[in-house]
Amino acid sequence: MADSRTDTVVRRPGGRTARTRDAVLTAALHELREHGHARLSIDAVARRSGVARATVYRRWGDRDGLVLDVVGWFGAAQATVPDTGRFADDLRLWARGIAAMLTDPTSAALVRAVLATDPDSGHAVRQQFWRTRRDLVRPVVERALDRGEIPAGSDVDEVIRHVGAPLYYRFLVLDEPVTPADADLAAAVTALAGRSGLFRPETG
Amino acid sequence: MADSRTDTVVRRPGGRTARTRDAVLTAALHELREHGHARLSIDAVARRSGVARATVYRRWGDRDGLVLDVVGWFGAAQATVPDTGRFADDLRLWARGIAAMLTDPTSAALVRAVLATDPDSGHAVRQQFWRTRRDLVRPVVERALDRGEIPAGSDVDEVIRHVGAPLYYRFLVLDEPVTPADADLAAAVTALAGRSGLFRPETG
Repeated sequence: MADSRTDTVVRRPGGRTARTRDAVLTAALHELREHGHARLSIDAVARRSGVARATVYRRWGDRDGLVLDVVGWFGAAQATVPDTGRFADDLRLWARGIAAMLTDPTSAALVRAVLATDPDSGHAVRQQFWRTRRDLVRPVVERALDRGEIPAGSDVDEVIRHVGAPLYYRFLVLDEPVTPADADLAAAVTALAGRSGLFRPETG
Repeated sequence: MADSRTDTVVRRPGGRTARTRDAVLTAALHELREHGHARLSIDAVARRSGVARATVYRRWGDRDGLVLDVVGWFGAAQATVPDTGRFADDLRLWARGIAAMLTDPTSAALVRAVLATDPDSGHAVRQQFWRTRRDLVRPVVERALDRGEIPAGSDVDEVIRHVGAPLYYRFLVLDEPVTPADADLAAAVTALAGRSGLFRPETG
């Protein structure tokens, strides 16, 4: 059932509680990928993970609680946060990571399941995905601010949105492959705009 | 049933065939807004429009054919294509138009119905929406190329994608309001990148 990527994700130290969480989230990830957010069943997740149904309900409450935990866990596990010492290079590597996430079949299916979902029921899940990813990459922008590569007062969240938006747009709206060249372009555009001070609210 | 915006859209000259089309597409637009793409019923559209069910099937074939026509018709009717003589101003006005479209409840609901839909069944609809809008705004970028405001060889489609992407991303993924300030920022970032030659494939 589990593919090699997921195996890599879940192998980490921890006690029985951590192992239970990993088993449940891995099962939920596979169920999400196969059935999507709207049709995710806690019973199916419990069966697949070998963890008691009552344990899943006690720990995650309901489907939404479980999906939120999967999305945070997977969104973080997917990411390598670059620190090359140069803003443009860090952005390029971050964008390449997004392109890779939207290309790998497992992670692409998960991203689609959480982002291209029902407007109402999916809101909290999309927010969780955005916040998880945003919090991971914030240091990249903050280091660029510290080094003076982008001017003080630049809106960190806007920088992060602009580097990802063309890639998610391509993936969700155009259904086109997201290539490393697309990532490099999104990063170059955002780095130039950042250096030029366009992300300071007063000049935007 | 019809609100004032839709009334404005459908009042135009034409014979009986044009009036039938307008009646059916207006009804389909309301059904799409209320029920979404997946639950759109041709029978309900026929009832609402007062046009015979057989006529609707004969002319549009099936639900997908009808939705495609609605999306092309509405995507074009929504748009004002700017021609100020300056690339940056044209882009800003185009982006403002996207922000307005994603803010008005009627058009926002339609855009959500066509873009945030099932990955498989929605593909042709999303492509139609993208192509309709892309074809409308192409002259803006081509005029900027002619005037030498952006360097020869720049990829027109990439320019168009970059100005819209942060706005659609905000709307679809973050579920946040899309403001005129967001539009101005997306346009400023894209105009700067365009002037700097980032949209030439060899330098992207």
